Amino acid sequence: MQNLIHQLTNILGAKFILLEDQDKSPYLTDWRKRFTGKALAVALPKSSKEVAQIVKLCSEHQVAIVPQGGHTGFCGGATPDNSGNQIILNLKRMNQIIEIDSVNQSITLEAGCILQAAQEKAADHGFLFPLSLGAEGSCMIGGNLATNAGGTNVLRYGNARDLCLGLEVVTAQGEIWNGVKGLRKDNTGYDLRDLFIGSEGTLGIITAAVMKLYPLPISQWTTLVACESLSSTIHLLNLFQKRANSLLTGFEMMTSESLALNEKHFPHMANPIQGNPPFTVLIELSDHESEEHVRQLLETILEEAFTSHIISDAVIAKNLSQANTFWHMREHITLAQAEEGANLKHDITIPLSSLEAFIQETDLLMRSSFPGVRIINFGHLGDGNLHYNIAPPLDRDPRAFNENYEKQIHDLVYAQVERHKGSISAEHGIGQLKLAGLRAHKGEVAHDLMLAVKKALDPKNILNPHKVVSI
Amino acid sequence: MQNLIHQLTNILGAKFILLEDQDKSPYLTDWRKRFTGKALAVALPKSSKEVAQIVKLCSEHQVAIVPQGGHTGFCGGATPDNSGNQIILNLKRMNQIIEIDSVNQSITLEAGCILQAAQEKAADHGFLFPLSLGAEGSCMIGGNLATNAGGTNVLRYGNARDLCLGLEVVTAQGEIWNGVKGLRKDNTGYDLRDLFIGSEGTLGIITAAVMKLYPLPISQWTTLVACESLSSTIHLLNLFQKRANSLLTGFEMMTSESLALNEKHFPHMANPIQGNPPFTVLIELSDHESEEHVRQLLETILEEAFTSHIISDAVIAKNLSQANTFWHMREHITLAQAEEGANLKHDITIPLSSLEAFIQETDLLMRSSFPGVRIINFGHLGDGNLHYNIAPPLDRDPRAFNENYEKQIHDLVYAQVERHKGSISAEHGIGQLKLAGLRAHKGEVAHDLMLAVKKALDPKNILNPHKVVSI
Repeated sequence: MQNLIHQLTNILGAKFILLEDQDKSPYLTDWRKRFTGKALAVALPKSSKEVAQIVKLCSEHQVAIVPQGGHTGFCGGATPDNSGNQIILNLKRMNQIIEIDSVNQSITLEAGCILQAAQEKAADHGFLFPLSLGAEGSCMIGGNLATNAGGTNVLRYGNARDLCLGLEVVTAQGEIWNGVKGLRKDNTGYDLRDLFIGSEGTLGIITAAVMKLYPLPISQWTTLVACESLSSTIHLLNLFQKRANSLLTGFEMMTSESLALNEKHFPHMANPIQGNPPFTVLIELSDHESEEHVRQLLETILEEAFTSHIISDAVIAKNLSQANTFWHMREHITLAQAEEGANLKHDITIPLSSLEAFIQETDLLMRSSFPGVRIINFGHLGDGNLHYNIAPPLDRDPRAFNENYEKQIHDLVYAQVERHKGSISAEHGIGQLKLAGLRAHKGEVAHDLMLAVKKALDPKNILNPHKVVSI
Repeated sequence: MQNLIHQLTNILGAKFILLEDQDKSPYLTDWRKRFTGKALAVALPKSSKEVAQIVKLCSEHQVAIVPQGGHTGFCGGATPDNSGNQIILNLKRMNQIIEIDSVNQSITLEAGCILQAAQEKAADHGFLFPLSLGAEGSCMIGGNLATNAGGTNVLRYGNARDLCLGLEVVTAQGEIWNGVKGLRKDNTGYDLRDLFIGSEGTLGIITAAVMKLYPLPISQWTTLVACESLSSTIHLLNLFQKRANSLLTGFEMMTSESLALNEKHFPHMANPIQGNPPFTVLIELSDHESEEHVRQLLETILEEAFTSHIISDAVIAKNLSQANTFWHMREHITLAQAEEGANLKHDITIPLSSLEAFIQETDLLMRSSFPGVRIINFGHLGDGNLHYNIAPPLDRDPRAFNENYEKQIHDLVYAQVERHKGSISAEHGIGQLKLAGLRAHKGEVAHDLMLAVKKALDPKNILNPHKVVSI
């Protein structure tokens, strides 16, 4: 091991290979503080060439590498194990925006570039970089791609995969694949790009990417509406899809329980819609024509929704500041849950046509199996993506309740997900958190295919072992 | 072999295993009549279970399978070799539309479903199935996915990959992977779906798919405009992207040479724009609001383009019939080329920001190296996708010229593609046509990754061997 450390130091310089506990410590625990590990060293390369050299060395020494970006993932995918034998390879020094191509509408960046920096750079050039999520001030493009990040703009612009045109990747053999191309069409063989995207650093290390840009909308209108039933929220979504089509850029559902929790912990985040409706939906339209055009379109659709009794109330944001408040209300649900104490989270997708049945059945099963639990249900409804979270009964000790019932509650929710042909991870990935359940969820055939791919691309199992799949 | 045939007959019934030359013959030659092969038999399964049984049997007997749909591909990917030892597995009997889900906005189909049948079924339910290409009356969904087909709607809706939500695939081991899910988000491990899409039947046989649907636009406006330079056509594209955003659903470029060839062979297809402009662009806007809205938007943008001297003339289609004529004009270029005689085709993409330099340089090189050649250049400019085709000089024997210079002309064009970081196959795939050049184009690292995936998923090399990659 000393030999390896010596060689790594030769490559990076002593400053960029962290060996002391106090230096390594910030890299060992994930953002939610759910996973903590140990590391032989933290390597901080400055270029893909250095990454390639590190991988070659580690491969020779059979030492595993844990690639890491902003370390904001929810599933422990970038946290090392407890052996103390793994090298963390953090890409934060590779944070350059290499090029903005206004004609091709694309941006080329290094993997360690902070998401928000990319958004801001694009906006400076009159473009929208659509990927947007809670952690955007800390998360990095490489991690966004490695986990195929989602967020609030998926409805219109897709997830990280859909926004990516090309990649540079360091393979498990320490070779550099230069796939940094800004092409909208390229049918030259197997889709390596999408194989690396979402593989959470287990097949290769993403070091750079070309991403799509879009012209900045000139006007956005945000509204909150009240629906009396889940089926109404889905009718409303279909109505907006039909009338506003791709002008619809946000469609977020919040239950009355979610917003009550918000108001309890953040009184200034009270729902501006009166009467505590069962479902409140945040809708955003974005337009490239004019403020009048999108405002009128929004009012026309809302009027149709009122007349058809799909919605019972609506508040249109008066200005940008109020629009931001509406979005903050949505984003604060997660924070209110954290304030309330430990809860059990499920990041799931269900086909929209099965969503109502899923929620009705699952709520019923949950309440009868675990009397008193509080169901905090909200999410990116436009994508069929629910954050179906369970908080312990008010009269129970939260930690003890979660320890006793965590597995049973997860099993109940995931069995319902299978029944309705959904996904047990909509946007957070697998990491180590959901590793054990993946084989059963994917089925033997798909899981065997994944294992075959992992063995083929990383036969020594040195890239982020025991994340996503275990060989 | 007789034993295999006997067992296949037991599975399918004698009617659906074709053994006689006259029965096999329609399956042996591709649509462009560029590739012809032989086959031991043509198998016509009715279900994915039968496909799985066939693959298992062929695997035991080490007999290769060539999966086939409508057999309309341009690269010989679905044509068997000359050994007479391969089995063609044609999926045309698996042509059922399994489900249209109006709420989830998705359609589930068997792989042998004709593209046009899917479009029509979707339209009956008020939806657009956006995939659209010349061969849509004959090509099948399975083949569209296996080749990641493009076409005229890629600009707005993406290619076959972008439209696919889930797949059913029979693996090289004869197992059925059931990935038939209609989810917009699913981050559960490696992206097997996109690995099979575009792999041209070399990694697995696609037997069913779930595809996205979109609400039908209520109004479409089509216009032809004249541009004096290529840079103007690109400015025009950027202008439409900025002002019309996702209402822009078509942007097709045609050079004066292309349209002159059209008029020569189809006089009724003359360009309605007078004066033979260097570049004619077909633009289509689609809207979900109203006819007045989109018409006014189109006029506003065209006015801005006139004022900025980006365009010199424009003809807006008066009605649907004239709009169709404009599209036919674009589609007839390929037919006019066929009438004119053999020509050398290049289906390439170039980043939009390099397109003008690519064309100027390549035209110059071409004309100086091969005096008198005619450059027929047109394509899906909105995607950076050119059909850069070369017809022999008028005074030369076409066949002799092509035989003598085919390799040199391809080499010249593809060297230019590399220079400008483009792709040698934008939408037609690799098949057998471009197999030899792929390693050089992709680079060693990417090509080795492809080989590793092929060996991992099809270790016996029985699925469409020597297409895309050769192991």
